[in-house]
Amino acid sequence: MKITVAQLNYHIGNFTRNKKLICNAIEKAKSNGSDLIIFSELCISGYPPLDLLDRYDFIEKCNQTVVEIAKECTGIAAIVGSPTINKNSEGKKLFNSALLLSEGKIVFCVNKALLPTYDIFDEYRYFEPGNKFSVIPFKGLKIALTICEDLWDEQPFDNEFEKKKLYTVSPMRELKKQDPDIIINISASPFSYTKTEARENIFRGKSQKYKIPLINVNQTGANTELIFDGASIIVNSKGEIIHRLPFFEEAIETYSSEEIFSGKLLVTKTKPKPIELIHKALVTGILDYFAKTNFKNCIIGLSGGIDSALVLCLAVEALGYKNTRALLMPSRYSSESSVKDAVALAKTLKVHYDIINIEKTFITFEKELEPLFKGTEKEVTEENIQARIRAVLLMAISNKYGCILLNTSNKSEASVGYGTLYGDMAGGLSVIGDVYKSDVYRLANYINRDREIIPQNTITKLPSAELRPGQLDTDSLPEYKILDAILYQYIELQKPAESITGEGIDGPTVAKVIRLINYNEYKRYQAPPVLRISSKSFGDGRRMPLVARY
Amino acid sequence: MKITVAQLNYHIGNFTRNKKLICNAIEKAKSNGSDLIIFSELCISGYPPLDLLDRYDFIEKCNQTVVEIAKECTGIAAIVGSPTINKNSEGKKLFNSALLLSEGKIVFCVNKALLPTYDIFDEYRYFEPGNKFSVIPFKGLKIALTICEDLWDEQPFDNEFEKKKLYTVSPMRELKKQDPDIIINISASPFSYTKTEARENIFRGKSQKYKIPLINVNQTGANTELIFDGASIIVNSKGEIIHRLPFFEEAIETYSSEEIFSGKLLVTKTKPKPIELIHKALVTGILDYFAKTNFKNCIIGLSGGIDSALVLCLAVEALGYKNTRALLMPSRYSSESSVKDAVALAKTLKVHYDIINIEKTFITFEKELEPLFKGTEKEVTEENIQARIRAVLLMAISNKYGCILLNTSNKSEASVGYGTLYGDMAGGLSVIGDVYKSDVYRLANYINRDREIIPQNTITKLPSAELRPGQLDTDSLPEYKILDAILYQYIELQKPAESITGEGIDGPTVAKVIRLINYNEYKRYQAPPVLRISSKSFGDGRRMPLVARY
Repeated sequence: MKITVAQLNYHIGNFTRNKKLICNAIEKAKSNGSDLIIFSELCISGYPPLDLLDRYDFIEKCNQTVVEIAKECTGIAAIVGSPTINKNSEGKKLFNSALLLSEGKIVFCVNKALLPTYDIFDEYRYFEPGNKFSVIPFKGLKIALTICEDLWDEQPFDNEFEKKKLYTVSPMRELKKQDPDIIINISASPFSYTKTEARENIFRGKSQKYKIPLINVNQTGANTELIFDGASIIVNSKGEIIHRLPFFEEAIETYSSEEIFSGKLLVTKTKPKPIELIHKALVTGILDYFAKTNFKNCIIGLSGGIDSALVLCLAVEALGYKNTRALLMPSRYSSESSVKDAVALAKTLKVHYDIINIEKTFITFEKELEPLFKGTEKEVTEENIQARIRAVLLMAISNKYGCILLNTSNKSEASVGYGTLYGDMAGGLSVIGDVYKSDVYRLANYINRDREIIPQNTITKLPSAELRPGQLDTDSLPEYKILDAILYQYIELQKPAESITGEGIDGPTVAKVIRLINYNEYKRYQAPPVLRISSKSFGDGRRMPLVARY
Repeated sequence: MKITVAQLNYHIGNFTRNKKLICNAIEKAKSNGSDLIIFSELCISGYPPLDLLDRYDFIEKCNQTVVEIAKECTGIAAIVGSPTINKNSEGKKLFNSALLLSEGKIVFCVNKALLPTYDIFDEYRYFEPGNKFSVIPFKGLKIALTICEDLWDEQPFDNEFEKKKLYTVSPMRELKKQDPDIIINISASPFSYTKTEARENIFRGKSQKYKIPLINVNQTGANTELIFDGASIIVNSKGEIIHRLPFFEEAIETYSSEEIFSGKLLVTKTKPKPIELIHKALVTGILDYFAKTNFKNCIIGLSGGIDSALVLCLAVEALGYKNTRALLMPSRYSSESSVKDAVALAKTLKVHYDIINIEKTFITFEKELEPLFKGTEKEVTEENIQARIRAVLLMAISNKYGCILLNTSNKSEASVGYGTLYGDMAGGLSVIGDVYKSDVYRLANYINRDREIIPQNTITKLPSAELRPGQLDTDSLPEYKILDAILYQYIELQKPAESITGEGIDGPTVAKVIRLINYNEYKRYQAPPVLRISSKSFGDGRRMPLVARY
C-alpha cells in the first residue's frame, strides 16, 4: 500500500483554487499508484476561515467542493478537512471534520473533539466538539484519524498559569481501545519559532505512548498574520522522526507502507536554525499576503535605520526588486549617513527609490498650526507631525500606483508605543511587528551572512527615530537588550511584574515598561496585521481591554 | 426578607474602584435593612476582562478583592461575580463564578455552565464550564443562582443559520429538580437595540416555564466598545415584568420579598423608544471611554455634514461643551454652506472651534509629489491626501492638548470602505461606526426634537465628501436607503446574496455592495474601536479573514 502526504498552501474561501490544488495532488498521487492521499485540516475552506463559517452560503460551498473532489477519488481514497453541518438539534452549528473520500463518496467522517480556543484560535466559536471515537478500517489498516488539537490533550504553555491539560477528553485514549495500527493527524498548525520542537514532541510522545507510527500533515503558506510552516512529519512507533517534509514549501510525497511501518529513517534535510526559519516565515508571510490579495507591488519608507532596511530586504526576497520601491523622506533631523545608508541599500538591492525632503511640508503644517499652538513648547506633537507627513506621502504612492505600504515597526517599539499612530505605524502589513529589536539585529546579520547587503553602519549605529536633534531611542527607553528581556517575560511568558528578572533589570524599569505596554494598547488596536512568528504576537492572539486599569 | 439589586458601572481591572462601588452599595443596603444584595457578573474584575484573565497576578487581585469585600458582609449577604481558579487537574484554568459572601466568608460558589463564545463573547477562551447544579439555601429560600448565558440555552439569533439551542445542557432544567423558589440571574449583557425585547423574553420565558419569580441584575456603563444598558428586571412567576431598573444608569434598589413574591407591578417608567436608547447608549459610550481612560477633552473635525454634526452633539452631551472642541478644515472643494453650517452648530453648542484651510498644505503635498506623479490623472489619491492632511491637523491638536480625536465615520461608510485610512477613519473612538446612515438621520432629528440644534441644511442637503468638485456620495454608492437595507441583510442577518431583497434592490447592486464590503476588510481592521449598538458591530464581534476570496 502507498500513502501520499499533500502539504499544500490553501487560500481562505478560494474554493476554485483549493479544489484545483487538491485535485492536482490527487492526480499526482494516482500516477504514483497511491492508495490514500492525506490533506490538511480545513483544506477545503482554508484556515482560519473565521466568521465566514457563520455564513450558510460559505458552508454550502464547502460541501459542494467536497462532493466535487470526491468524484475525483477513483482508485484512490483521500482525507480532506472541511467544516460540516451538525445535524443534531443542540450544540454549535458546525463540526470541524476530517472526511474520507472514496469512489465518489464520503465514506467516513471524524469530528474534531478538542477545539483550541486560546491565543489565535477560536474554534469553539464555530464548532461543536466531536464526542464519538472510532478507528477507520482502510485496506486492512485501522487508522486513528485525528485533527490537530485532538493530539494536544497535554501540552506545554509558555504561560505557567495555563493548565497542561486543557481538556477533559483524550481522543487517543478512546481510539486506543479499538487497537489502531497508525495515527493520522491532519493539522493547520501555525509557525512559532519557540514551538517547532514542542510540536514535534507532541507527535513523538503519542507514537511512543501508543507504540504505533504517526503521520502528521500540516499546511504551508500564510493567510494574513498566520504563517504555516508545513514541516509535516512521519514518526515511527518508537517516537522517532523518520521523515520531515520541507519547511514553508509545498510538497506532495508518496511512501510505501513498508517505509512507514519499518520505522527506518528516510532521507531528510537537517532542520534549519530558528533565525533561518523566522527569515523564511517572514518572506512567506509577505509573499502570500500579496499573492492572495492579488497585489504585486510594495512601497517602503526607507530611513537608513535597521528596521526599514530589514523589511526592504525581506520584501525584495518575497516580491522581487522590480516590485519593490522605496521612498526616502529626510528631514532637518536626518543625519547625512542615514540618507547615504538608505541609498546604498536601495542600490545594492536594485530597488527603485525616490527622495522627498519633508522640510517644506513640515514648515507648512507648523505655520498653519501656529495660531493654535502659540505659546506652547515643541514636543512630541511636532515629532508626530513629521512621522505623519511621511505616512501621507507613502500612502499617496500606495494609492497612486496600487502598491501596498509595508510597515516597518518592530515588536519592541510596538510594545511600548514608541511609534506614531497614522505615522510610522501605518501600512497594510506589519512585517516585523512580532520581531523584537534584538532579533531584528540577528535577522540583519543573517541577511548579511554571505556579503554586506545591509550597510554595516545601519547595523552598528545607535538606533534613533531622528525626529528631534540628536535623538536616541535610549533617551526614552531602556537599552533594547534589557527592554526585550522584560517584554518577553511580560508578553510571552505573562509573568507578574515581581517575577521579571535578568541582568540589568530592576523594579522601576520593569514598572515603567509595563506601564508603557499597558498604556499603548489603544495604539496597537489600530496597527496593521502583524506577521506572527512567536507564541504571543500582537493582533488576534492577544486581546486586551482598552479602558482597563491594572 | 429584603433583597437589594445593585446595578452598577464597573471598570475593568480597577479593583480599588470596583471594590469601593460594591462596598458603598453594601453599606446602603445594610442601612435599608436588606438581607441580600446582588451584584452583576464579573463585577470584581469588570467585564470583559479579556486576556487579563490569562495573567495570574490579575486573578490574584480578583481573589483578594473578593476576600476584602466578604469582610464587609456582616449582617448581610452579597452575591458577586468573579473569576475563580479551577482546581481540577483538567480543563481551562478558570471558572466564571457567582459567589455568595456572608459573615466574612465565601459560603457558596456557582460556576457558569453556558459560556457564550460567539459575536463579542469569548468565554470558553478562559473558562471551564460548570457542570454541578445546586440551589442555594438562603434564609428559608431556595435560590437558583445562574450567570447570564446560563438562562440562554434557547435563544433567537438574527442569523437564521444559527441553532436556537447552542448548548447540550440546560442549567435551569437541572436546578428545577431541586425545586427552587426564585431564579437569580447575574449578567453582563451588553446593549443592542434589536435585543432588548429578546432579552426580556428570555427571562420572562424562564419564570413562566418554572413558575417562579426571577431577578436579573445587569451592569450599566461602557467598557470601550461594549455598552451595558442596565435595565435589570424583576419578573413574577407568570412571566410578567413587575419592575425594570433604569436604562444606562446606576441604581441600588431594595425590595421586600413580599413585593417580589406577590407578583404585583411595582412603579416603573415606561420603556424608552429604540432611538432614545441608541442615543443614551452612545452618550454613555463616550462618557465612560473618557472617564475610564482619564481623559477629559475631545476634538472633532467638523465638516458641515451630518455625521460630524451628530458626533459633536453627542460629545457635548457626554463631556460638556467646555471639554469639546471642533476644527473646521475647508478646502477648495468645500461649499460655503458647509462652513456656515459647521460654524452655526459650533456656536449653538458653544463649542470652541478653529478654522484651518487645508489649501496651502494640499498644494505643498501636490508639489512635492509632482515629480513622482508626472503624467498621471488626478483621482482618489488626491482625495485621500486631503482627508489625511485633516487627520494630521486633528492629531496634532489631540497630541498638543491631550484631547482624544472622536471619529465620525458611520456604519454605512465603514461597510463599503467609503473613507480614507489614516484620514477620516482616524480617531481614538468611533462614535457612530455602528450606526447606519439612515439612523444617523433619525438621531439627528431626535437631537432636534425640541429645537433646531443641528442646522436643517445639514440634515437635508445631499451627502458629499467634498473631496472633488460637485462630488456626491451617490456618485459611488447606491442611495443610503437601499444601501442600508442591503448592508443590514448581509452584515446583521448574514443572508446569502441571492436572498437579499427589498424595494429598489437588484442583483447587480447587491453584488457591488457585497464586493465593497468584502474588499474593505483591511480598512476596518485598522479602524478605531466602535461603540456597539447593534447585534453585529464592526470590531471584535465580527472577525473576517483579510486575505480571503469569497
